[in-house]
Parts: sequence; C-alpha cells; structure tokens
Amino acid sequence: MATLENKSIIYREIPDGLPTSTHLSLESSTIPASAPAGGLLLQTLYLSLDPYLRGRMRDPETKTYSEAYVLGEPLSNFGISRVLDVSSTGAAAASGLKKGDLVGSPFAKTQFRLYQPVPEEQVAHYAKIEEKAGVPLTYFLGILGMPGMTAYHGLVNVGGPLKAGETLLVSAASGAVGQIVGQLGKQFGMRVVGSVGSDEKVKYVTEELGFDAAWNYNAEKDPYAAIDKYIPEGIDVYFDNVGGPLADAVFLKAKVNGRIVVCGTISQYNTPREQQYGMKNYMEVFQRRLTIKGFIILDTMINEPGTIQSIVGSVAGMVGEGKIKFKEDVVEGIENTVSAFQGLLTGKNNGKLVLKYSD
Amino acid sequence: MATLENKSIIYREIPDGLPTSTHLSLESSTIPASAPAGGLLLQTLYLSLDPYLRGRMRDPETKTYSEAYVLGEPLSNFGISRVLDVSSTGAAAASGLKKGDLVGSPFAKTQFRLYQPVPEEQVAHYAKIEEKAGVPLTYFLGILGMPGMTAYHGLVNVGGPLKAGETLLVSAASGAVGQIVGQLGKQFGMRVVGSVGSDEKVKYVTEELGFDAAWNYNAEKDPYAAIDKYIPEGIDVYFDNVGGPLADAVFLKAKVNGRIVVCGTISQYNTPREQQYGMKNYMEVFQRRLTIKGFIILDTMINEPGTIQSIVGSVAGMVGEGKIKFKEDVVEGIENTVSAFQGLLTGKNNGKLVLKYSD
Repeated sequence: MATLENKSIIYREIPDGLPTSTHLSLESSTIPASAPAGGLLLQTLYLSLDPYLRGRMRDPETKTYSEAYVLGEPLSNFGISRVLDVSSTGAAAASGLKKGDLVGSPFAKTQFRLYQPVPEEQVAHYAKIEEKAGVPLTYFLGILGMPGMTAYHGLVNVGGPLKAGETLLVSAASGAVGQIVGQLGKQFGMRVVGSVGSDEKVKYVTEELGFDAAWNYNAEKDPYAAIDKYIPEGIDVYFDNVGGPLADAVFLKAKVNGRIVVCGTISQYNTPREQQYGMKNYMEVFQRRLTIKGFIILDTMINEPGTIQSIVGSVAGMVGEGKIKFKEDVVEGIENTVSAFQGLLTGKNNGKLVLKYSD
Repeated sequence: MATLENKSIIYREIPDGLPTSTHLSLESSTIPASAPAGGLLLQTLYLSLDPYLRGRMRDPETKTYSEAYVLGEPLSNFGISRVLDVSSTGAAAASGLKKGDLVGSPFAKTQFRLYQPVPEEQVAHYAKIEEKAGVPLTYFLGILGMPGMTAYHGLVNVGGPLKAGETLLVSAASGAVGQIVGQLGKQFGMRVVGSVGSDEKVKYVTEELGFDAAWNYNAEKDPYAAIDKYIPEGIDVYFDNVGGPLADAVFLKAKVNGRIVVCGTISQYNTPREQQYGMKNYMEVFQRRLTIKGFIILDTMINEPGTIQSIVGSVAGMVGEGKIKFKEDVVEGIENTVSAFQGLLTGKNNGKLVLKYSD
C-alpha cells in the first residue's frame, strides 16, 4: 500500500506563558496515501494563525467559547486544503467533492499537518471553496473569513450605530482584524486612529490604509499621553484587540456615551489570571456612561447565518471596488509554525498571519 | 429687623479620603427673618444624603456629570423645605408659592442649612410638592425621587429586557437604590440575590423585602466563594452600586451574554485614582460576551422627561399597591450630618439616608 511521509504539529503540553516547541511539537509519521473508507484525504495548503488559538491551549476543564485542544492531537484551525483522494463509498462519495477541489473548514477543523486523513463522520466539516476572480485564495482565511466577519460585525453591529465624524481608535491596528476595522471606519466617515507596535506599521496604516493617525506603542509607552496627543477630541468608539493599560486609559479618555467593543485582549493572553493587568478606571463606566460589549463571531456564525452572509457580501463588495486593502504575512513551511505563533502573540507579524504548508 | 439664628454645613476643604468636620464645617450665622426682594425664605425639613455627593467634593477642574461643590458655600442636594416667607415682588410673587407650601428641588439645590434665603434668580429651582395620601413626605427623596428613578431606569431600561427566571445580583442591596432594584426584580419574576454589609441587613432584605438570598460581605469576604454559594447558576444581571472586588468577581461568574449595569462604585469613592482597585477579569468581557453599561439618571431627567414621568407613575403604583416597601434611615439634627455621611460611605446606614433638620 502506498504511503505518505507526514508532518504534524502535535499539542503535547499546556503552556504557561508563550508556547514553545515543547508544547507544540513537530512530529513525523507515515500514513496511507489514500482516503479512509467513506472519508477524504486532504493536503493542507494554508492555515490561519490567530491569537485566539492561545486560549485553546488550556486545561479542558475551563470552559470558554472555544474548544480546548486535546493533548496528543494536532492543532487545528481555519484552513484551505486540496482534496487528494475521495473514498468511493459513504459520506465522501455522497459529498460531491472531487479530487483537486479546494475545501475550507468553516468551523476551524483543518489540522496543522501536511496531509490530513478525514474519517467518514467528519466529512461534513469541509466545504468546497468557490474561488472568485481577482481574490487571492488566502483571502478566504482573512478579509472574507473570520477576521473580516469579526471586524465588520464588531464595528458596525456591536459598536454601532456609527456616525460620520465620530472618532474611532483601533488597537493592534495592522493585525488581521484591526486593519479591516480601521478601513471600515473610514468608509463610514469616521476619524480613525490606530495603535501599533512599530514605526513601520504606523507608516503602513497611515500611508497605505488611510488611517488619520497612529502611534507606535513601543516608542510612546504612556497610553494616556498618546491618546492626549493623537486624539485630543476624545474617543467615541474603541475597538479593543489588546486589553491591558491601553484599554484602561481609554475608559478615562472616552467621550461621554462612548462605546468600547471588546474583541480580544491579546496583551494578556500569556498571563495567568491572578497576574492579569488590573483596570483601575472602572469608575468611568458610569461617570462617562460607557457601553462596553464583548462579542465572539462564532455566536453570529452559528445563530445568525443571514447576518454573516450579508457581512461577507458587503466586505467582498468593498474589496472588489478596491475600497479596502488587506495585508497578509505569509510564513512558509510547517517547521516555522511555532515561531510564527510566538511572533503573532508578541506583535511581530505584519498583517494577517497565514501559514503556507504546500503550493 | 427681625433675624434668625442659622446653622449651615459649609464646604471648607477638599477631602482626600473620608470627609470630616474639617472639610464640612458646621457654622452659625444670623440672617434676616424675611425673604430677599423677589425671593423666598425656606426652612429645611429634610435632605437626601447620597453617595454621589462625595464625588462633588473635588477639584472643580475635574469635570464629571455632577457639579463640583464651591469652597466656602453650603452643601446642597435634593431636599424638602417649607416656605416661610414669599417676597411680594418679582419671581417669588409670580411663582404662585405661598407661605406654608412644601417645596422640593428637582435639581438638587436645597442647601444643608436650617434656613435658606433664595435670591430672585433661583426661585425657579424650587417646585411645590403635592403630597399624596398614604405616602410619607420623605418618600419624595427616596422611592419617588432620585433613588427610585435610578433603580427603575437602571434595572428595567438599561439592564433590560428582563426575563422571568433570570438571576439578578444587587450590591449595596439594602441601600436607597438597592432595596428598590431587588424588589423590582421580584416584580419581574427574577431570582434576586443581594450583597449587604451586616447580618441584620441580610435578614432585612430576605425576610422583609422578599430577596431570595443575600450575604454579608463583611462576614463572607471572598466574593468568588460567595457567588458560588448563593448563585451557583450564574448571574444574568448585576446591578453594581459598589465596584471593586465584587464587580471583578461578577465578570468571571456572569453567564454568557450577562449584563452589568454600573450605577456607582461606592467602595472606591474615597480612594485616589492611582490606588483604585484593578479589575483583573476584563478578558471575560469577550469570553462571556458581556454587556456593561454605565448610566446617570440626571441624563434621563434632562433629556427624557417623558421616561421619568412614566417611571414615577409605575413606581408610585407599586408603592400604592403595597408591592414595594421602602426603608429609610432618618438622622435628626444638622449637627449629625457629617457622621451620617461617613456612615453612608462605609456602609453603616440601614436604608435610604435622610437628614431631618426641622419638624
């Protein structure tokens, strides 16, 4: 029987802080070169690398919105694969999928491995991707995938109604979600300011994405001073990707009736609960009559598919008309997975991180 | 010319922590026994004593929703006064007010003094109170005044829509606002739990007000453990009067899609900004998709008088039908003002604090 030499990123240990190759181990194995009975054999082309994956590396007893990874199993996430083989029986045969088709995994089941055998009972987790002319394939992991839906839903539906002339602050502004949020803000006529981690990123968001201003939080370390300097008028809407001291400062620097959309708190993901940054300006919630809302795009994907469809339609339209740009940071080779993830968690990526495992 | 011996609580110094008689000084003066030209002479009967007054004792450069007190002037707040004299000219004559009428001050201008001369340009700040049969006069400072409006608007409009069967947690549950919030929760079919500062208050809210459960935070000091014990099902709505560690614990113990209404943070009012309690569970805002909203009833009083009218109507109806009880803690004598305020800020009052200056 023909076989394939496979490589996988196996989840071996729960990390305390930043995950390393001790926790996420690159391992080789040999697998059959054909689909299991009733199933599929996939070749992984691209995988999305997202901050929320850090939250899945936890004690499975702790329940959150995302499933904990299982020790001894490969990591998984949103991905794009090529169908290498389709079983002639069962679910695979009934799926209509053909050799050579490209498939995505709307619920993040694509595994971090070169080749992925899909057992019959999981065939339904993979859906054919219809490529669009002029849209790079990887955009289905980004601006037309979870980050795009997150940005649009968070800003427009959770943070809205938006008014032209309002001021929007976005943190992690050159990241997968942030870069879309800021550009959407401009489409709605807002003044848009971003917080980013390097001078290069300041340049990128202001010169290429049309942000009105941005600062490098590694150079200007006092968030109160930075806000006073770049947003003297006060903040109407804050799209929070980072939590920590910047979020705290925003509580104090928000306008009366300001809104804060909490999408993530990446600055705190590697910190145990007892050592999390303490937000001292909670009193401002009533002093300034703030509205603070957290959301998880998965809720909307599950409960409001119509909303998701309309979001993807809107975003695809803006991309098609060239109104929104999208920057990707593509890292090639499965052996670079862990270092890319470390870079993502410490703000070293430049744009949406995508892993490329095969051509 | 006839005169009156007056006593006043004069604001002499900005307090750092708990205000004392150094900051709020009891002073005597002699004033004319008749109204100023075009104005009124009032005798103060009752004054409302509220935690928010602490926030008015600040550097006037710091702008918040409430006006800073002016050094050298008497304190002021919601109050009920008797008209002793009406000038026969100007605004007073035109006001229709008569000697013996009872007047309130919808925008909290009643001064902390035995007798209050009202100059012509301020006559419009005082409005005649129409007594209602069976409703104690002091209720106009409580359940039919700012605390009642705050409780109803905060719980029903800001925290709603409420669903029967949901669990409501109220802090400072035997206070002016808290006791109404809890009883309103029961009217809406919720399970209601309170946090209070003594065993006596636990008994009061559970046995007299119909709360389902309550705990004494001075005896059960770990808010996480208390919530696990009294609210094992998780919190749908938290009406926050206190801020601090309990609010932090609620972030972690809220149900998915939980709502937090921030009405005040009394546990932190005497603490400078740099030493405010730091909320470590901010990450839960998105993990649990929380909605956190602050509000100030004054906004609604100014911008939505129709809403206020309908609130007062609803609450008066419930009081009339005996569905809601209201406990007052009446402190007699202007000389006890400062100690009563200290007690309020440290949770020693039992029910809505009202000062009685004259019969």
